[in-house]
Amino acid sequence: MPTPSKHSRHPVLTALGAAIRHRRKACKLSQEQLAQAVGMDRSYIGQVERGENSVAILPLAAIASALETTIATLMQEAEL
Amino acid sequence: MPTPSKHSRHPVLTALGAAIRHRRKACKLSQEQLAQAVGMDRSYIGQVERGENSVAILPLAAIASALETTIATLMQEAEL
Repeated sequence: MPTPSKHSRHPVLTALGAAIRHRRKACKLSQEQLAQAVGMDRSYIGQVERGENSVAILPLAAIASALETTIATLMQEAEL
Repeated sequence: MPTPSKHSRHPVLTALGAAIRHRRKACKLSQEQLAQAVGMDRSYIGQVERGENSVAILPLAAIASALETTIATLMQEAEL
């Protein structure tokens, strides 16, 4: 299970995490349901949403897909 | 120095790598110049451009910034 990276609370990560959380809630999914949909641990999803993990592109692509959106849209919402 | 991940040639990574390469060339930068601008190894930039590395968000943010663009724009160009 990935440990919180040294990037904790980096503005890029917190902005992206907030965009993911916003989209997840719009889809009416819990962190647990999203985690199951992408085959990841719920705590990992929580870390990503809190901006504690410099998520890589492939897991992010899986998260975007499970949230029926695109990485580009998530980045636009996060203003990144 | 990160080794090529098991994700070699994943379509998401090759699409993103091509978008980064396209943007780098539009900025008339060599891989070496981009690598120096973001404090990374030239071979890492080469791996990312060839789609051999599931690049994380923070290095990607640095690359986008050095290429005077945004992650969202790179993702749009890569259709991700």
